[in-house]
Amino acid sequence: MLQIAGIAGLPEIEPGTDLAAAILHAASASGNPLVDGDVVVVTSKIVSKAEGRTVELADVQPSPFAHQWAEQWGKDPAVVEIVLLEAKRVVRQIGPILITETHHGFVCANSGVDQSSSGAHGRAVLLPVDPDASARRIRAGFVAAGVNAAVIVSDTFGRAWREGQTDIAIGVAGIQPILSYIGQVDPHGHEFMVQALCTADELAGAAELVKGNLSRVPVAVVRGYQWEPDDTATIAPVLRDQTRDLFR
Amino acid sequence: MLQIAGIAGLPEIEPGTDLAAAILHAASASGNPLVDGDVVVVTSKIVSKAEGRTVELADVQPSPFAHQWAEQWGKDPAVVEIVLLEAKRVVRQIGPILITETHHGFVCANSGVDQSSSGAHGRAVLLPVDPDASARRIRAGFVAAGVNAAVIVSDTFGRAWREGQTDIAIGVAGIQPILSYIGQVDPHGHEFMVQALCTADELAGAAELVKGNLSRVPVAVVRGYQWEPDDTATIAPVLRDQTRDLFR
Repeated sequence: MLQIAGIAGLPEIEPGTDLAAAILHAASASGNPLVDGDVVVVTSKIVSKAEGRTVELADVQPSPFAHQWAEQWGKDPAVVEIVLLEAKRVVRQIGPILITETHHGFVCANSGVDQSSSGAHGRAVLLPVDPDASARRIRAGFVAAGVNAAVIVSDTFGRAWREGQTDIAIGVAGIQPILSYIGQVDPHGHEFMVQALCTADELAGAAELVKGNLSRVPVAVVRGYQWEPDDTATIAPVLRDQTRDLFR
Repeated sequence: MLQIAGIAGLPEIEPGTDLAAAILHAASASGNPLVDGDVVVVTSKIVSKAEGRTVELADVQPSPFAHQWAEQWGKDPAVVEIVLLEAKRVVRQIGPILITETHHGFVCANSGVDQSSSGAHGRAVLLPVDPDASARRIRAGFVAAGVNAAVIVSDTFGRAWREGQTDIAIGVAGIQPILSYIGQVDPHGHEFMVQALCTADELAGAAELVKGNLSRVPVAVVRGYQWEPDDTATIAPVLRDQTRDLFR
């Protein structure tokens, strides 16, 4: 059986906050200390805040294109400029929303740039520069404290073919993001049609069910999930090679 | 806190099997009877089997196109014919895989037709004709037994922009599939960038983590999730209007 619980009572996250220490402390203080085997799902926004991945809109010099596009769609030109700077390519535009591929290789709305919950007006929160490295730093803090827990950094993305967004994994540490069934056969001897499950995305989505986007609970713990500790794990296998991008 | 547990000990599902009764019995027999507020996630394959949504490949007359396409990609022409018959349109082809929009409006690989775990060789399992109706029948059986549980019928779909498949909802009963934040603001007064979460997909994915695709556990119960019983709920809000299909 899986148990999934939010970790309440985290402090307001500032640049330099030690997230591993803050999470360990909040979990213990709430009477639910982390244990070996836990999968800790951390919302990317607090990772970005701890890493100082925020931009004061007043410091941004929007390009003429950003001005033009922002005016057409009633957006803030500084935010548009940041979205474009965070993008490797623009995949698609739907009204005021730009679907972009970020420099990491994630395809999402507005390059994952978030103007909400930024701790102040006039500030944007960007995705972490290297979410796998962010996850590894947090996991290292847990391991140093004697807890062998995996870490998933999550964000909330839309999908091409379904309405509504879901939380997915943008960085992992200690746990492989994809569980492969390739070559295995079912009880009737057929090879599985399902060959690879993105369990990291399922874990991130499960964690969202207790975190919620309205609440102030940016971390959740999934307990009872079986995973094989693997410190070579990265999110890379989830990023679709552009030659297989179903959108192109 | 959420608790998610698989329901083991279900009988082999045959056409006409009363799934609600079978699930209630297996849950009680396993010492974990269903209770009010549970969300029961049922893998579509057993729903299809109970509804007789299987086709003997020997009974299929493949079209010349199906023959030609099957030969090109080393597929069974009968299966190709079934995939095409289950499709409203072919969205995309990736090597031997056809991404289609089913008559329900789901965009998925091979119209959701499954040749694995079909109970016999030479048989294909199709998606339920009306997964919402299937979910409502199961929920009605629970309610008749005095248990106000929601039901999600799940399947395993791929995504346009990420590798690995995840379990998602194809039918719902008693629970709305999308949780909307539209118009709500965060603690800093910003409207949320995230406006609608597809919690039904997150619940289906969470259930997959305990069901697994290799195991014989096609049903899982999510306990402790807060939902507002609503018997008008359908999966329709999750189906993207083709005018908003990010693929077109």
